[in-house]
Amino acid sequence: MSILVEFSVIPVGTGVSISPQIAKVLKIVAGSGLPYKANPMGTVLEGEWGAVMDIVKKCHDAVMKDSERALTIVTIDDRKGKEMRIEKKLESVEQKLGMKLKT
Amino acid sequence: MSILVEFSVIPVGTGVSISPQIAKVLKIVAGSGLPYKANPMGTVLEGEWGAVMDIVKKCHDAVMKDSERALTIVTIDDRKGKEMRIEKKLESVEQKLGMKLKT
Amino acid sequence: MSILVEFSVIPVGTGVSISPQIAKVLKIVAGSGLPYKANPMGTVLEGEWGAVMDIVKKCHDAVMKDSERALTIVTIDDRKGKEMRIEKKLESVEQKLGMKLKT
Amino acid sequence: MSILVEFSVIPVGTGVSISPQIAKVLKIVAGSGLPYKANPMGTVLEGEWGAVMDIVKKCHDAVMKDSERALTIVTIDDRKGKEMRIEKKLESVEQKLGMKLKT
Repeated sequence: MSILVEFSVIPVGTGVSISPQIAKVLKIVAGSGLPYKANPMGTVLEGEWGAVMDIVKKCHDAVMKDSERALTIVTIDDRKGKEMRIEKKLESVEQKLGMKLKT
Repeated sequence: MSILVEFSVIPVGTGVSISPQIAKVLKIVAGSGLPYKANPMGTVLEGEWGAVMDIVKKCHDAVMKDSERALTIVTIDDRKGKEMRIEKKLESVEQKLGMKLKT
Repeated sequence: MSILVEFSVIPVGTGVSISPQIAKVLKIVAGSGLPYKANPMGTVLEGEWGAVMDIVKKCHDAVMKDSERALTIVTIDDRKGKEMRIEKKLESVEQKLGMKLKT
Repeated sequence: MSILVEFSVIPVGTGVSISPQIAKVLKIVAGSGLPYKANPMGTVLEGEWGAVMDIVKKCHDAVMKDSERALTIVTIDDRKGKEMRIEKKLESVEQKLGMKLKT
């Protein structure tokens, strides 16, 4: 059973620009093989709990390599009997609205 | 000065499927005129604090119209002297990575 | 109608220790007159939407005074016909458990 | 190295009152042996990444036993070389403020 997860890792105390660390995170995510969607505030992943949390920890650890402190925020949406929600969740909303959404 | 915000409204106790309520939220967002990006876990908006929070409240109230309880989660990223971050934040990461990200 | 809210403000780029900024936030909260409870990860407030959001914005602005960037996270739990949930929510759980919880 | 974590599990679609499920979560937490503090919006835990995430998963799974859907929100604050932050973080703020905070 797969879960849908959004997460972000914020280094605290390394500087105002955090895009180098976000680049490290998204390199790990893109190389993981799991379906993902990046947005300006975080990354959405879908997969088994263990596989997803393993990637979240790898990303957190990568940021902590050159940061004294990091905040990692994880939101898990778990719904029985549903798969490929990373695509279908918004499609279902678009059908109800009868319009395409900006993504 | 504009802020970058991600938010989501989750009705609690109305049922397992919440896409009708998410459709209501995204109709309000899409009609607001503010730049937005919908993702499977929330919606990213950019604008002045007052304008953005006004939309968040409208969406929350719309869900509370036919729900006894709702949870609304708001994450604000505020950075001085930066605008149009809803586009530029990921572009800056893509430049560092030398690749296009899935969005 | 009052809402129950937890929020935290995290300055990004000012340094690894953020307790001076958290002190500023909690001074504003404690002086607001609204019922609150501080915990190691955030502050819980109860009040009308406008009154609570006004305090959240004051706290965010206070941190942005000496920070280039800040992340503010707000979680709203809104339930019709319920008041003083800042006390009663955990009491109801303690009654079900038949034990006092550490707070 | 220990991390400081706040988490909450929200069953979606089981009903408006979720205190029976929060009671299940806090029974697991209180029996875990890890230092914790419950608040009206979530529970703060301190421990090694694996130990903490194991408890979060146990709580999530316990709620999913009698729920079709659940949302679990986890916020991790990781700071090198610091321990017992579940007590010390607020104490440090209280010292700066020269006053006791409500908790």
